[in-house]
Amino acid sequence: MRVKLVIEYNGEKYCGWQRQNNGISIQQHIEQAIKKLTGVKTNVTGAGRTDAGVHALGQVAHFDTNSNIPADKFSYALNLLLPKDIRIKNSCEVDESFHARFSAQAKEYRYTIYNHEHASALYHDVSLHVRTKLNIEAMKRVANCFFGTHDFKAFMAAGSDVKDTVRTIYHIMITQDESFIYLDITGSGFLYNMVRIIAGTLIEAGKGRIGVEDIKGILEGKDRVYAGPTAAPKGLMLMKIYYDNYENDDKEDA
Amino acid sequence: MRVKLVIEYNGEKYCGWQRQNNGISIQQHIEQAIKKLTGVKTNVTGAGRTDAGVHALGQVAHFDTNSNIPADKFSYALNLLLPKDIRIKNSCEVDESFHARFSAQAKEYRYTIYNHEHASALYHDVSLHVRTKLNIEAMKRVANCFFGTHDFKAFMAAGSDVKDTVRTIYHIMITQDESFIYLDITGSGFLYNMVRIIAGTLIEAGKGRIGVEDIKGILEGKDRVYAGPTAAPKGLMLMKIYYDNYENDDKEDA
Repeated sequence: MRVKLVIEYNGEKYCGWQRQNNGISIQQHIEQAIKKLTGVKTNVTGAGRTDAGVHALGQVAHFDTNSNIPADKFSYALNLLLPKDIRIKNSCEVDESFHARFSAQAKEYRYTIYNHEHASALYHDVSLHVRTKLNIEAMKRVANCFFGTHDFKAFMAAGSDVKDTVRTIYHIMITQDESFIYLDITGSGFLYNMVRIIAGTLIEAGKGRIGVEDIKGILEGKDRVYAGPTAAPKGLMLMKIYYDNYENDDKEDA
Repeated sequence: MRVKLVIEYNGEKYCGWQRQNNGISIQQHIEQAIKKLTGVKTNVTGAGRTDAGVHALGQVAHFDTNSNIPADKFSYALNLLLPKDIRIKNSCEVDESFHARFSAQAKEYRYTIYNHEHASALYHDVSLHVRTKLNIEAMKRVANCFFGTHDFKAFMAAGSDVKDTVRTIYHIMITQDESFIYLDITGSGFLYNMVRIIAGTLIEAGKGRIGVEDIKGILEGKDRVYAGPTAAPKGLMLMKIYYDNYENDDKEDA
């Protein structure tokens, strides 16, 4: 059977989602836990890679198993074997046609900025500290420019060799709660580092260095050097993967 | 001059606010940093003790110094010397009549419950995990019983020798945001473990074991054994100390 997992993790101590030679990944922890449980070496396929330090509230993955553990019990069993900063929130059986990556219709990310003179004692590993007072209204105006379908080549990490760099942003919103500024963004897919480069560009906008009038040129220039810097991974959180039509999906199930 | 500090900390690794022989306290860290900075051994007085594992977003403390460091620069200088999980959010000069503990008019706490089948990977050190699905409406009804002035002797840790156990709750509210349940409570002052015993009682209410009809009897019985268990410290956060009249105070300055 094929089992779908919804996974929450604090990425601080990991080299990212994907198995790598230079550190321990979240994928590796989960694969090891499944092997311990079922006795069989198993590949786990994630909806998307997250970089070292990036967090997830709703990463999704799938794996195939002949185990007779009921699919919905895998979450309980795996959580007994996983470190505390990786939790399976839900496990269920899915059709063999389901693929965590290829079936995904949209992805939702949140980037969190802590905008205060002093860093946060409680939230320093899940937010980026920005000392300069940011202009939220300017950030909102620039954020709106990313809505819709654009060629986001200028917002892809240099060196990435993806050919089709056109992506659609279904929803983008900047909100503020006391010293926290949140960028919520949902799109058909994201290029490598795209959310963090958009976040870095919006921080520049909040400092008055990039305006609405610049974004059209940056998008059309298709050159990474014109966009803002890549914001630090610790502020980024993968919130949810949408498998049904984005508009109709139930936001509660992550 | 007298300097007032507003302090944020993650209490996970500390033996609490107050200096103790069995571990490192937040007070001790701040006193050591002031000594390093000014060369003078200095006592720091906090608005209230917080237990081992309890967090603060807005603890307040004061100290006296002859240093010629401007009062508002102490925050920056101390933050260079303090561990990352203790941050001075603000420092300012106050009148000699100001006393962090005795001038306090009210205190606001938040207790956070994570009500989900599985623990949280990201928020496990700032919330209490409760697996059983809690009835929020039942919790709200019982919470309302604590509003106003009561003798809270039954909600004080056994062994505490405080004589006057009458306290006034100015505000108490239960809210829910997906799997998080928040208890926000503001009062004239709190007995030892009072917020955690109220939180434990409300969790019992959410499980259907304690109802509105029981609270009057528990308060009148004045016996710790009738109230709910003391909820774990990691869910508790000291949010704010009010020095002006609670009603008129500006909620933004913590």
